Amino acid sequence: MGQHLGKSSIRLEKPVYITGSASVVGKKEGEGPLGLLFDMVGEDDLFGCETWEEAESSLQKDAVYLAMEKAGVKPMDVDFMFAGDLLGQSIATSFGISCYEIPLFGLYGACSTCGESLALGAMAIAGNFAQKVVCVTSSHFASAEKEFRFPLEYGNQRPLSASWTVTGSGAFVLGAEPDGKDNRRCCGSTEVSGEKTTPVSKGARARITGITVGKITDYGLKDSMNMGACMAPASASTLEQHFIDFASQPDDYDKIITGDLGSVGQRVLIDLMRERGYDISSRHMDCGMEIFDAESQDTHAGGSGCGCSAATLSAYILKQLEEGNWRKVLFMPTGALLSKTSFNEGKSVPGIAHALVLESCL
Amino acid sequence: MGQHLGKSSIRLEKPVYITGSASVVGKKEGEGPLGLLFDMVGEDDLFGCETWEEAESSLQKDAVYLAMEKAGVKPMDVDFMFAGDLLGQSIATSFGISCYEIPLFGLYGACSTCGESLALGAMAIAGNFAQKVVCVTSSHFASAEKEFRFPLEYGNQRPLSASWTVTGSGAFVLGAEPDGKDNRRCCGSTEVSGEKTTPVSKGARARITGITVGKITDYGLKDSMNMGACMAPASASTLEQHFIDFASQPDDYDKIITGDLGSVGQRVLIDLMRERGYDISSRHMDCGMEIFDAESQDTHAGGSGCGCSAATLSAYILKQLEEGNWRKVLFMPTGALLSKTSFNEGKSVPGIAHALVLESCL
Repeated sequence: MGQHLGKSSIRLEKPVYITGSASVVGKKEGEGPLGLLFDMVGEDDLFGCETWEEAESSLQKDAVYLAMEKAGVKPMDVDFMFAGDLLGQSIATSFGISCYEIPLFGLYGACSTCGESLALGAMAIAGNFAQKVVCVTSSHFASAEKEFRFPLEYGNQRPLSASWTVTGSGAFVLGAEPDGKDNRRCCGSTEVSGEKTTPVSKGARARITGITVGKITDYGLKDSMNMGACMAPASASTLEQHFIDFASQPDDYDKIITGDLGSVGQRVLIDLMRERGYDISSRHMDCGMEIFDAESQDTHAGGSGCGCSAATLSAYILKQLEEGNWRKVLFMPTGALLSKTSFNEGKSVPGIAHALVLESCL
Repeated sequence: MGQHLGKSSIRLEKPVYITGSASVVGKKEGEGPLGLLFDMVGEDDLFGCETWEEAESSLQKDAVYLAMEKAGVKPMDVDFMFAGDLLGQSIATSFGISCYEIPLFGLYGACSTCGESLALGAMAIAGNFAQKVVCVTSSHFASAEKEFRFPLEYGNQRPLSASWTVTGSGAFVLGAEPDGKDNRRCCGSTEVSGEKTTPVSKGARARITGITVGKITDYGLKDSMNMGACMAPASASTLEQHFIDFASQPDDYDKIITGDLGSVGQRVLIDLMRERGYDISSRHMDCGMEIFDAESQDTHAGGSGCGCSAATLSAYILKQLEEGNWRKVLFMPTGALLSKTSFNEGKSVPGIAHALVLESCL
């Protein structure tokens, strides 16, 4: 059950727990500042597959497997899956997670999909429609370049405002109880590997206590090589609505975390929020700016993609909440709603952002 | 609140009501057997726009406007929207409904998205997360041919097993109360048109009482010109699971309605269900076979697309329930999970199908 606040937000009267999560990333992400924190790093970005799309599918498959293992649940214990990616018709998802045979809600929110999946997953648990759900999203640098810009073989140049799509996936197991009392019954052999596993879930990684659902926000920008600026107005809209709906202030959060605005979008967001009377400059963090070292890794504005916020949430943000370094954060992945067709037809690039209140269980 | 049944289904203890709906279709659909039932029929398939994609966006925009008008609600009264289409990155949705400024959950389930949107929308209402939601999906023959097969200008030939993507959209307003007691406060001028409107909501069109969420089902078929056969195994899987979870039988439903299996997929579904011990032959109906006259309209296996099941639900199925001609139906849109990339890379075409129990309010 949830308490519906204002027009865009839900306060979860009983929190929903993230009982396990995992991140799988590519080689470049493994070499970045968060490299040691990811659960699995590929030796190369094909992950043993023949195409970039299959490689992205394998990211989702592996992330879900590891997250379930860490939460001590088997596929048959999961009621629903909420999943998506950036590719046309979400094929990374369709071919990535079908092996688990879990009823699926396919989502598309561009790079905000990680937030959307956690929001809907939390609602499914809080509404008593499910006991366990899995939320997963992914992106892949090479499949995304082919989907949205140019195949890598063209060797095109990238402006400094461009972001670098993260090769990665993050998967999350949500449940109504923090340590999954009912987990014990479902540990033992997993159906996927056939091997015996040991339950590692000792308690939840964090709890979800609030949701603000974003609206499509379009300032008319058309530059798909500056997606941070395209998405910043949407993140400002969701953030302001969040503060209003929850009667909260920036100081109520240890961090206000966007998905992949990058360095250009960050400046725009901070300015837009200042115009609205909120100073978030000291508390803002962007997953895209954390996952790469822009200077040494030549990633320009920062990392982007569904996998950017998802992998950073699992590897870094949840770790801070788990260790009690942060008490409460606002996690707000941001998405740029374009396709190569809309871009070629001269359309703008609207944005959308969904926010979740994540709190430490300590 | 819902009662979670088995692994894939939810029984809504308190039903969710479809308080208004609308359908907007293209010229060819208007000339078909259901032509007189649609709320709006385009004079041509561009709907006054410059591109097929913009035309598809306008379908969603108009369907949502009419559905809200019929339900007697304004955009500001709607908490969330659940929407999607078939195009890469769901651009018909992104550019179609942003004007309403309603918080959005973007969905992708191929042609099953109408079912997915109603399932999640019903859960949002039943879980007390929202008072009103709007669910909308669309497809467009020309934008879909360009997205999945060949631009129309190529004049390619189509095999008899191919379906014809419906140019259409269906939108649905869901609420917790049948006649929207709280509708009265929100009638009057609508923000969208600026004109005075008269509330027309006299009672709900139907109620949603159960949900079965589908799994990705892949029999390895690769023929994107025979999507009915590709999707039939998924619809059989969801249907069997539905009968098990609800301890029901085909006879419990006046109609068992698939989205767009067409004549080829219908035969496969009936055979697959017979193998599982269920005879649905006398009760099965397929929206794709209802919306066109395959003989005179040269649509081969039948209509398909997100808009096929959505427009047929609004125009025809809900009318039967409203008039009491049918008491209870199972509405199960079916989706084929492919993209031109997955097709070109030699992948199979998995399917997915989501089912809803719809009951008459009489």
